[in-house]
Amino acid sequence: MTLSQGRTYLAIPGPSVSPERVLNAMHVSAPNIYEGALVDMVHAMVPDLKAVARTAGDVAIYIANGHGAWEAAAMNVLGPGDKALVLSTGRFAALWGMICARLGVEVEVIEFGRQSPVDPAQVEAALKADSDHRIKAVLCVHVDTATSVLNDIPAIRAAINAVGHPALFMVDCIASLGCDRFEMDAWGVDVMVAASQKGLMTPPGLGFVFFNDKARAASVRSVSYYWDWGPRSAPDFFYQFFGGTAPTHHLLGLREALNMIGEEGGVEAVWARHDRLAHAVWAAVAAWGQDVEMAMNIADPADRSRAVSCVRIGNGNGLRLRRWVEGNAGLTLGISLGMNTEADPGGDDYFRIGHMGHVNAHMVLGALGVIEAGMAALDIPHGAGAVAAAARVIAGR
Amino acid sequence: MTLSQGRTYLAIPGPSVSPERVLNAMHVSAPNIYEGALVDMVHAMVPDLKAVARTAGDVAIYIANGHGAWEAAAMNVLGPGDKALVLSTGRFAALWGMICARLGVEVEVIEFGRQSPVDPAQVEAALKADSDHRIKAVLCVHVDTATSVLNDIPAIRAAINAVGHPALFMVDCIASLGCDRFEMDAWGVDVMVAASQKGLMTPPGLGFVFFNDKARAASVRSVSYYWDWGPRSAPDFFYQFFGGTAPTHHLLGLREALNMIGEEGGVEAVWARHDRLAHAVWAAVAAWGQDVEMAMNIADPADRSRAVSCVRIGNGNGLRLRRWVEGNAGLTLGISLGMNTEADPGGDDYFRIGHMGHVNAHMVLGALGVIEAGMAALDIPHGAGAVAAAARVIAGR
Amino acid sequence: MTLSQGRTYLAIPGPSVSPERVLNAMHVSAPNIYEGALVDMVHAMVPDLKAVARTAGDVAIYIANGHGAWEAAAMNVLGPGDKALVLSTGRFAALWGMICARLGVEVEVIEFGRQSPVDPAQVEAALKADSDHRIKAVLCVHVDTATSVLNDIPAIRAAINAVGHPALFMVDCIASLGCDRFEMDAWGVDVMVAASQKGLMTPPGLGFVFFNDKARAASVRSVSYYWDWGPRSAPDFFYQFFGGTAPTHHLLGLREALNMIGEEGGVEAVWARHDRLAHAVWAAVAAWGQDVEMAMNIADPADRSRAVSCVRIGNGNGLRLRRWVEGNAGLTLGISLGMNTEADPGGDDYFRIGHMGHVNAHMVLGALGVIEAGMAALDIPHGAGAVAAAARVIAGR
Amino acid sequence: MTLSQGRTYLAIPGPSVSPERVLNAMHVSAPNIYEGALVDMVHAMVPDLKAVARTAGDVAIYIANGHGAWEAAAMNVLGPGDKALVLSTGRFAALWGMICARLGVEVEVIEFGRQSPVDPAQVEAALKADSDHRIKAVLCVHVDTATSVLNDIPAIRAAINAVGHPALFMVDCIASLGCDRFEMDAWGVDVMVAASQKGLMTPPGLGFVFFNDKARAASVRSVSYYWDWGPRSAPDFFYQFFGGTAPTHHLLGLREALNMIGEEGGVEAVWARHDRLAHAVWAAVAAWGQDVEMAMNIADPADRSRAVSCVRIGNGNGLRLRRWVEGNAGLTLGISLGMNTEADPGGDDYFRIGHMGHVNAHMVLGALGVIEAGMAALDIPHGAGAVAAAARVIAGR
Repeated sequence: MTLSQGRTYLAIPGPSVSPERVLNAMHVSAPNIYEGALVDMVHAMVPDLKAVARTAGDVAIYIANGHGAWEAAAMNVLGPGDKALVLSTGRFAALWGMICARLGVEVEVIEFGRQSPVDPAQVEAALKADSDHRIKAVLCVHVDTATSVLNDIPAIRAAINAVGHPALFMVDCIASLGCDRFEMDAWGVDVMVAASQKGLMTPPGLGFVFFNDKARAASVRSVSYYWDWGPRSAPDFFYQFFGGTAPTHHLLGLREALNMIGEEGGVEAVWARHDRLAHAVWAAVAAWGQDVEMAMNIADPADRSRAVSCVRIGNGNGLRLRRWVEGNAGLTLGISLGMNTEADPGGDDYFRIGHMGHVNAHMVLGALGVIEAGMAALDIPHGAGAVAAAARVIAGR
Repeated sequence: MTLSQGRTYLAIPGPSVSPERVLNAMHVSAPNIYEGALVDMVHAMVPDLKAVARTAGDVAIYIANGHGAWEAAAMNVLGPGDKALVLSTGRFAALWGMICARLGVEVEVIEFGRQSPVDPAQVEAALKADSDHRIKAVLCVHVDTATSVLNDIPAIRAAINAVGHPALFMVDCIASLGCDRFEMDAWGVDVMVAASQKGLMTPPGLGFVFFNDKARAASVRSVSYYWDWGPRSAPDFFYQFFGGTAPTHHLLGLREALNMIGEEGGVEAVWARHDRLAHAVWAAVAAWGQDVEMAMNIADPADRSRAVSCVRIGNGNGLRLRRWVEGNAGLTLGISLGMNTEADPGGDDYFRIGHMGHVNAHMVLGALGVIEAGMAALDIPHGAGAVAAAARVIAGR
Repeated sequence: MTLSQGRTYLAIPGPSVSPERVLNAMHVSAPNIYEGALVDMVHAMVPDLKAVARTAGDVAIYIANGHGAWEAAAMNVLGPGDKALVLSTGRFAALWGMICARLGVEVEVIEFGRQSPVDPAQVEAALKADSDHRIKAVLCVHVDTATSVLNDIPAIRAAINAVGHPALFMVDCIASLGCDRFEMDAWGVDVMVAASQKGLMTPPGLGFVFFNDKARAASVRSVSYYWDWGPRSAPDFFYQFFGGTAPTHHLLGLREALNMIGEEGGVEAVWARHDRLAHAVWAAVAAWGQDVEMAMNIADPADRSRAVSCVRIGNGNGLRLRRWVEGNAGLTLGISLGMNTEADPGGDDYFRIGHMGHVNAHMVLGALGVIEAGMAALDIPHGAGAVAAAARVIAGR
Repeated sequence: MTLSQGRTYLAIPGPSVSPERVLNAMHVSAPNIYEGALVDMVHAMVPDLKAVARTAGDVAIYIANGHGAWEAAAMNVLGPGDKALVLSTGRFAALWGMICARLGVEVEVIEFGRQSPVDPAQVEAALKADSDHRIKAVLCVHVDTATSVLNDIPAIRAAINAVGHPALFMVDCIASLGCDRFEMDAWGVDVMVAASQKGLMTPPGLGFVFFNDKARAASVRSVSYYWDWGPRSAPDFFYQFFGGTAPTHHLLGLREALNMIGEEGGVEAVWARHDRLAHAVWAAVAAWGQDVEMAMNIADPADRSRAVSCVRIGNGNGLRLRRWVEGNAGLTLGISLGMNTEADPGGDDYFRIGHMGHVNAHMVLGALGVIEAGMAALDIPHGAGAVAAAARVIAGR
């Protein structure tokens, strides 16, 4: 017998659950890409997209996943011989750095480990040491889904400013956009990378690079046609928006997702929802962790994302739990990613819960209830009162 | 702020949650109704439908809701001057009786109240008293969604047999089919009424009347064209299946729903899932009810349905709770239905949870978590440990 | 090799092609049927539905097909012993009469054959002969899809009025509503029957009965619960609208279909489109019929429907043509229906083209082109210039 | 009044009409991208994709449009200082060359004009002149949608072979794959570029690069991470297939499209369908062009594509016609693209008909009928008998 037959919840840290409205918006035969409704829609949609990113700057939309958007961002401002400072707090900043290195960029990585956010003091020190300003860009993820750490973007910007370093500040918000508060312009971010499939609730297939005038001024000449953000952000004709054929169905989906954000009350309302739901998860994990080693991977709540939670369950139980909840209860949790250490080679001591995008109290409490059931079924020791504690957070109590 | 934006769970006792697969199967332009794939499909589907009802008898499929199917069943075997014995255990058997009365049938109702199942002894007594066999049919619901009572169909059949009464035994399985175990042939049911929108996971719009040879032999001549089960159950040509134009899209949806039941392991696997999920709900309600008046409306688990749970929360809190969970958490609970009494005129002391059809452990535990949150938010006293208790049931512990 | 792989056109006289918008509107998980958005929507939709019928009267919406709506209309005003006058011009008025007969109604049929509309003079004579006013209702189809005849409703009303007969005038607009001009109130129609799957572009599953005060006053007491138009047209609470569970998904589809009619410019714009498209079909058939026996079944254009065209191709070629166009070109034509005569026992001398609902110039000209190809492939003699003639009509030349 | 309300036909040369089956396959909530059904499906799908391309070589799948696939193909084998020979027969080979130039590649273009295919003799001469083999690749489009020319790929390969030149032969089949016969391995093509939105009937968003061992051996080291075909074509783990997050919904759509191709009888059956449909279009244009200047842009049928037809209508009537057929009849034709000349600055002397992918006889004949109507409405002179001529081709006569 299985208890999984019903509406399943894919609680991996992306792609997130697709709203029915978004899927319906995409369920149309191909529209004209040369003129008419789609063309008008895209022009009207760009401001709404920028509003979610909290920027008055520019945006280039790519048919690509997040890795493609990373490459696009890097190629527009970095070239062979340039140097980038990568602030690694999990897995993804390092991957972005690897992509830069493939472009001939010299990459310096500061490693902050798997359980800590970026330490601005170290950033400041590294930039101070770069007295001849060889570093052209500082790369950082806002949220690393592998660790679920949330980096303090304003503090890093302050560190850059403290030494008056001219490097571009480039931030990956792929996991955080539309989940954790992010203020591109107010926080002094020059380049921001995002994608469609997490907080923006649209299937994977669109990458975004937002950038300001400083970044535009720093654009290099060696950028390839496809990644060149110039025509995409200021097209002379519609075809240039997407460097060729427009991603018709994804655009229709994204439009509907942005409508949903607007109807909810704008991105601030969406942030507030994610904040409360994340606190519910944290409360449950804290209860489970009483007297056992189970805990949030990131100890300090101030350093945790509202989009995803990486949980240490220990004893290799991550894999067993994931198998049980998917096979028996309709919940798919995220695998551990890059948490392998010498002491924990398989990474199966961890699991992750994606609570990003189209997710509400019912879904989150259901996920917590299912995890509780799974631990009971598998005889994994855990503290009591977890779902009740989460429910109190949901209740605002 | 609302925490309801996400995939909502409509936990009313029907219509139940529509599976994506069923909706996709219905998302096709109209098919030919005269020949070809649809015609072949319907012929092949009828046996699968009978298998769910556990009968080797006949079935007539109506474009109608459950009330229409009631009328169809009644009109085929009852006419003006006939008498029907109605066993009332909530709201719906009485409504079926009312529909019979509109046809000129004399209706005798035995009322078992809102918290008890049919007492077979009373049925036996009533039939014994009907020594001239004026009663042509005994009408009963298997599950009454108003009270969530489950009636003991084999016991009622035994009562009928005990006095050797020839009346047809007609059972409404609208709420129970595909949720609570039901064995039409083995249990000696002559006529069974069902509909598409609950355990069969298809939008409202199809009603079913299953019947055996005894019922066919008892068919009256006065039946109207539309309700006549004769041509529908044994059509000479396809048009007669549906007494006119076929319900094309509903048929495609139903086919997919039956596929899903088959893939899960057949209706016995589906019953087992509902059984476990219902026990989880009951465990939660029992925990909530410690030291307060909250309780399952039906005291004895043996008398409870696996499709729906009617819960007494008291103090008019049913309405407040429903409003909160829908507005704040993405869960829609069922209203109280027909539970009004003198002491409780508004009926708002109750709410109902539908857990029928396309529902899994994640959805049910999420609903329980949300109810817990709602009671916390509204300061409704309740016992502790409810979701944990439910999770243990899910875990099989 | 087949040339049919592509978007097929189901050109049978109902169900008509389902618009993508309608199907998308139906692709949602079940909504609440007790309160909220669906309830509000239905209340707001009823006036739009009446506007299409051109009536300020009432409407009852049934989960049923057209045959069910016939039975509903009949049962509300006719009972055993009543007499109905049926004006037969094909197949469907006679079937409606059969349904009345099943209710115990005495049915008098005037047969106008398969190629002529109702002759008002004969109606007048029949009513004049009914000096004691035993005839309670005159039943007529506006368009008979079997013959594609269009009856002159105002002329028949004038005939009834000419003799001052009090019978209700009941008209079946199942095939014509939203295709051929129809003015319920202005034309003095007392009861009008329609369904969802033709001009209203929604899958089969909803039947409608529109009626005026005179008809309401004539309501009989013997009507069954399900067919009773009283509560449905003036519900005290939402549940009564549909005599039980609402047809959730069909209602959402119908709402979208009515939106589409509104956006096109209202039903008059829709009529104008159908008028032009029908003239295009007629022009093609006229061209094909030069020097061969092929012809529109209805000779006089004034008597032809804009929803469907019954074409006599002769020599049993109807079946061959239908097979070819479906198997080779993606077009499904309607079968001959009830055109069998002694001289033509198989009915295969005819085929029908449905051009109702969601149909445009591209679809109609494509159908005509495919028929032309089929006749060429099958060596069926036909006149030249047919599609060009149709195109000129489309062009307004 | 408009006659466009109905199912519209987007007859631009891509994106092509989306089949309902493909859209339904994409209408699912996000699947897991780490393990399970999607992962298994992709592995099983790759051979089917290669079968359509008629190759036993490798394929890399990119989240990108065709321009992205061009860039990918170029970057894997060409670097700064390399030289490419571009064979221009319209618009798209030159654009591919421009993308190469952006990568620092030296581009030599042989221009064959807007009405002629590649002349293999000129290719042979150019390669002969490259005695030191500086040319690393010969770039050519199979079908240029701007002109609708079809290039003779085997003849160009023969020209390369005639001089024993080692350059890679790289062919763009974006418009032709699944429409015009193409045999990658048999024809000696080393690299082939395609995309999802034309013959493959899936929304824009996927680009494909097929390549053989010779091309793999020629891979350069400077390729960027995202475009590197190495890991994508031989992934160690699933994530590498798509260089990051998988394009979940497009993959599901593509799977269904490949199913449809298989069910039709494989790509040879699909080619045969397109061949017949294209001949129908050509027959119509020939008839229209009697005594007026209207004509296919490509004079010799041997040089015409089966995917798209560029038609010279003259007198600036292309724009007027497109406006009329879209606004009045539900048909969207392709704009002229790059046909501007001194004598014809606006390009409005041309229009294009896309007849690629999910297209059948009904759709094509309907498009021709609508064009005929448009010319009639706009008083554009044209010869008679066009649709009839096309219908005869469809009929095989």
